[in-house]
Amino acid sequence: MPVKTETCRVAGFRFAGVSAGLKQAAGAKDLGLIVAERPVAAAGAFTTNLIKAAPVRLASKRIEAGRVQAVLVNSGSANCFTGKAGDRLASTSCAALAREIGCAADLVVPCSTGVIGHLYSLERLRVGVKAACGELRCEGADDFARAIMTTDTRPKTACAGLKLDGRSITLLGIAKGAGMIAPAMATMLAFIVTDARAAPGVLRRALGRALKASLNAITIDGDMSTNDTVLLLASGAAAGQELAGSALAKFEAALSAVAQSLARQIVYDGEGATKLAAVEVSGARSRADAEKVARRIANSPLVKTALFGRDPNVGRILAAAGASGVRLDPDRLVLRVGNVTLAARGKIIVSGLDKAKRVMNQRQLELKLDLKLGRAKASILTSDLSNEYVRINAEYRS
Amino acid sequence: MPVKTETCRVAGFRFAGVSAGLKQAAGAKDLGLIVAERPVAAAGAFTTNLIKAAPVRLASKRIEAGRVQAVLVNSGSANCFTGKAGDRLASTSCAALAREIGCAADLVVPCSTGVIGHLYSLERLRVGVKAACGELRCEGADDFARAIMTTDTRPKTACAGLKLDGRSITLLGIAKGAGMIAPAMATMLAFIVTDARAAPGVLRRALGRALKASLNAITIDGDMSTNDTVLLLASGAAAGQELAGSALAKFEAALSAVAQSLARQIVYDGEGATKLAAVEVSGARSRADAEKVARRIANSPLVKTALFGRDPNVGRILAAAGASGVRLDPDRLVLRVGNVTLAARGKIIVSGLDKAKRVMNQRQLELKLDLKLGRAKASILTSDLSNEYVRINAEYRS
Repeated sequence: MPVKTETCRVAGFRFAGVSAGLKQAAGAKDLGLIVAERPVAAAGAFTTNLIKAAPVRLASKRIEAGRVQAVLVNSGSANCFTGKAGDRLASTSCAALAREIGCAADLVVPCSTGVIGHLYSLERLRVGVKAACGELRCEGADDFARAIMTTDTRPKTACAGLKLDGRSITLLGIAKGAGMIAPAMATMLAFIVTDARAAPGVLRRALGRALKASLNAITIDGDMSTNDTVLLLASGAAAGQELAGSALAKFEAALSAVAQSLARQIVYDGEGATKLAAVEVSGARSRADAEKVARRIANSPLVKTALFGRDPNVGRILAAAGASGVRLDPDRLVLRVGNVTLAARGKIIVSGLDKAKRVMNQRQLELKLDLKLGRAKASILTSDLSNEYVRINAEYRS
Repeated sequence: MPVKTETCRVAGFRFAGVSAGLKQAAGAKDLGLIVAERPVAAAGAFTTNLIKAAPVRLASKRIEAGRVQAVLVNSGSANCFTGKAGDRLASTSCAALAREIGCAADLVVPCSTGVIGHLYSLERLRVGVKAACGELRCEGADDFARAIMTTDTRPKTACAGLKLDGRSITLLGIAKGAGMIAPAMATMLAFIVTDARAAPGVLRRALGRALKASLNAITIDGDMSTNDTVLLLASGAAAGQELAGSALAKFEAALSAVAQSLARQIVYDGEGATKLAAVEVSGARSRADAEKVARRIANSPLVKTALFGRDPNVGRILAAAGASGVRLDPDRLVLRVGNVTLAARGKIIVSGLDKAKRVMNQRQLELKLDLKLGRAKASILTSDLSNEYVRINAEYRS
């Protein structure tokens, strides 16, 4: 499924991104809107962290109804661990937008990203919402993508088109995040809008499946945000039948491709990252086993510093696999970096090390571990651990 | 229990540490011996990593008999993932020492630490063993402590004395390790010798209890070595009764104090560490819950970079706790840094941040999270994540 990493128009949606003075940096865009012409079918996925931000609690409740007309995002403040004042701030903010666009308040979904424990100024947000509503455009997705950035160094967008029953359907994804928890600024946020027609339940299942191998299969620092949110909105403006059967299968493939593109862009832009590595574990007894091993390797600080040092450090990868809690057989497993075999039959293959070093010089590469115990597999995208990561995260003052 | 961080004599044991040319650095000590006058009661604890080094497999088998006469340690090579050749090397090395001191080969326990996948030279080891046997002394523990070092910047030793039934009993602990897996060089190794009299089963249980709150409650990088080994040897040379009842309780207190001192010294000397932080979780429903939360916080790269940056970053600590999988109530928990309260009743206490910053300037400090859900607690020692950690681990080439 070809995906373009740029924005596009999606019938039924308008976007805006403005500066409302919510971020410390003067003039930086920090307030983003997605507004639909009328209530649209919606599904969402939220952080499983037990410390949930106020907007996450409100958004997850509102998304249950399956209908949404607008999404209100602020960057600069996570509105998390802010007590009852935080809850009030989230709902009052949504009400302000609802009034401007003339819809019911519970059709507005809030998302926040930024410093935990801080409240933003309601007054500034109100002024910003008014200004943003004046700038809503079908072509505004680039502004929106910039307004939701925090430590991101670039906007993250993905666009896919497909034909269903002779009609053109478009999907547009926009995400932010440079750490599961970025340093000062928290959170991964992702928004995918489409003009396909679909029932909320169908969207929910499709989103769940798409996330498994995309935004839920990445790690930058193994930490889990209090604000992570993914929303899928379907306007139905392309008309046609409601998604089902083979059309639904095609749509899901496009949805997965968009989500995977956003996932890659997030890890590629990981804090201080110089490498994008896919940790691919195969030959496991179950998918859960494969994922457990892959996550352990992908989160190991020693593997991640080895990636930064461009060192095919077999010992660190194997030690992480062995510590994953998954039963494995050291004498059967095969470890490859790119297409170079580095360990097999219980021994390290020293002759492969020089070739592997060349693979480690690439910006993007694969670490492949075949456990030779079954047929299940899983892949986790990870970045390296660089001194720049430490600088970014140590220099920030809360 | 007062513990001195220096070595002392323990009746019944002699030590040596020599340079055998096993490490790359010329002249560095890399071969250590502990030799008892006769077979002594022994207990051990080993890595639970499924990728186990050859010496770990052999040592854990031999320790089952509960009797040991000598410990042979090499640094520079982990002898892990080295196939059958690695198994042969471990047992042949032990046999060489057994011949020199005139004991059965299965009374010698091997330990290795260093690069995974590398075999050391048997010829050099044999020459080294002969030389080391010529240097065995009751006062040789300092040489031994230096011989087992890899990326450690200082030897780690702890000595405690107590009176049991009118007799003086001594415990001496010696450890190495600057990472659960240090970079090139793997492993935590710890050896505790005593002149108390005890049955192997008693030692085993005492060791298990002592490790829980000491060497099993530390993390530098969350990675688990393939070679971790702890050995407890009791010569009985102080005569007296076999340990039981209140004498055993006193001995266990001393053993815990020695193990805790070694644990602190290891984390204090963690790779690139500038901080030693105790993450103390209390008010949990169970000890397992408390430990899970404490480990999650102690292993979080974002918490560790905040420690390095001397930043009392409440959001990162809470987000790590919330992601631990343990059910907790954000509105009840209380978070303190030192004695400064930073979060309570679901809100961050901004007025505490300045005071907390002063606490963060200390070399050693406590992060205290009271979940207010029960009475169980646990503490995990951790170090910070500095750019020096990244340098050490990225610059090493395997």
